[in-house]
Amino acid sequence: MTEEEIRILEDERVDDLMRNGYRIIQKKEGFCFGMDAVLLSGFVSVRKNETAVDLGTGTGIIPILLRAKTEGRSFYGIEVQEQVAEMADRSVRLNGLSGEIRILQGNLRQILEEGGRTSFPRAGAPGSFEELFAGGIDVVTSNPPYMKGEHGLQNPQEMKAISRHEILCTLPEVCAAAAKLLRTGGRFYMVHRPLRLSEIMEALRQNRLEPKRMKFVHPFIDREANMVLIEAVKDAKSQCRVEKPVIVYREPGKYTEEIYETYGY
Amino acid sequence: MTEEEIRILEDERVDDLMRNGYRIIQKKEGFCFGMDAVLLSGFVSVRKNETAVDLGTGTGIIPILLRAKTEGRSFYGIEVQEQVAEMADRSVRLNGLSGEIRILQGNLRQILEEGGRTSFPRAGAPGSFEELFAGGIDVVTSNPPYMKGEHGLQNPQEMKAISRHEILCTLPEVCAAAAKLLRTGGRFYMVHRPLRLSEIMEALRQNRLEPKRMKFVHPFIDREANMVLIEAVKDAKSQCRVEKPVIVYREPGKYTEEIYETYGY
Repeated sequence: MTEEEIRILEDERVDDLMRNGYRIIQKKEGFCFGMDAVLLSGFVSVRKNETAVDLGTGTGIIPILLRAKTEGRSFYGIEVQEQVAEMADRSVRLNGLSGEIRILQGNLRQILEEGGRTSFPRAGAPGSFEELFAGGIDVVTSNPPYMKGEHGLQNPQEMKAISRHEILCTLPEVCAAAAKLLRTGGRFYMVHRPLRLSEIMEALRQNRLEPKRMKFVHPFIDREANMVLIEAVKDAKSQCRVEKPVIVYREPGKYTEEIYETYGY
Repeated sequence: MTEEEIRILEDERVDDLMRNGYRIIQKKEGFCFGMDAVLLSGFVSVRKNETAVDLGTGTGIIPILLRAKTEGRSFYGIEVQEQVAEMADRSVRLNGLSGEIRILQGNLRQILEEGGRTSFPRAGAPGSFEELFAGGIDVVTSNPPYMKGEHGLQNPQEMKAISRHEILCTLPEVCAAAAKLLRTGGRFYMVHRPLRLSEIMEALRQNRLEPKRMKFVHPFIDREANMVLIEAVKDAKSQCRVEKPVIVYREPGKYTEEIYETYGY
């Protein structure tokens, strides 16, 4: 496929993902993917020919990494913010992945509504989520906003604020949207804060998503966890494995072997 | 206090707990406390003058260790099996702790019933749980049976089977009993299997016990967790800290420093 000319804005930069030569467009200041997304994409399994949907995809990092790491067939990234969805779409095209990854602009709350609409950043043609995902999805992923409501916010309209705070969607809504999209036995993968673990478990179970695998991420071996990775299976029976912890740093500024090897940092 | 003559049965042995000179009576074969109880007692905090109740106390190991490690004032151990309660009571007397620790014989299901009865192994005089614990308890602990129902059991009447399988009480009943005993703000500490984490979280929340602190125990740094330690607070707001993991062995047969230092193995 010949590479089309992709526009890069003044306030954007292009980073190399060190995977398949893929690159990603990010904002120079502030709106960049974090280690959360990278760890999540290392935790997720997408099998051959499966379809995966990322809720709140931001820069599009998760579908792009999953496309690089797995044998899944189709990947979707849903993003509520128009400007961000448009930027993610340019990253997809920059990598020549328009055939495999589709970015959709829309609020995931629309997934929960009958006939809820979405649109494609370029084509703009609106469609309904129900038509798009009629067959039931194999895998849903999400790195949702971690923080409750507008607590402590300067400006709730800001791009970063929307990605970090539950302004346009809440944790139960993310879980409900995942459950609605998934087929029976389909897998939902989420990264979140352990501080909210109790709510997370409740929101999952209330949506018939049974937690089956968890992994806690500790910045250092002797510090409390600051992230949790969860795999929940739709309509599964209750049995949860807590895998060996991820330790990020072996000393300040130096990643552990696992971070280099498993997560390719 | 002068030491009274304590009877030790043919099939029993007396072990030194390496704490305050305390000893414990156990069965030579099979009915002994495990690392679970020791880790739990290291995780629990009982503050000055508080009262703590252990549900399903078995040998009485948890009240005895908590008495050694904390400044709590009164400790109770409730045990359903008569023979086991009687043995735990002898351990209490062996250590001259009759004033501080009281073993009660009774099924914790009785805690949930109006006027539910219990009795003291020696005195035998029955009393009601409600009278005994009228004021609301500060701390409840439990190392309950881990396994569901009678699945895979040889003989469900066996002493060990009752302590390991949910024959005489279930996880939701343990949580309900803890919640009923606790005052507002009182703490419930439990050790259990991560495999049942999802049910544990649900049972806690359904009984207004909010998980606030968790610690996963991994036999080795690169293996999945085989125990979870949980602190839940009655009627607290939702916010959970996942502390640094406990790693038991640094190599086969050799405990980590933490196990020696923190847990006094």
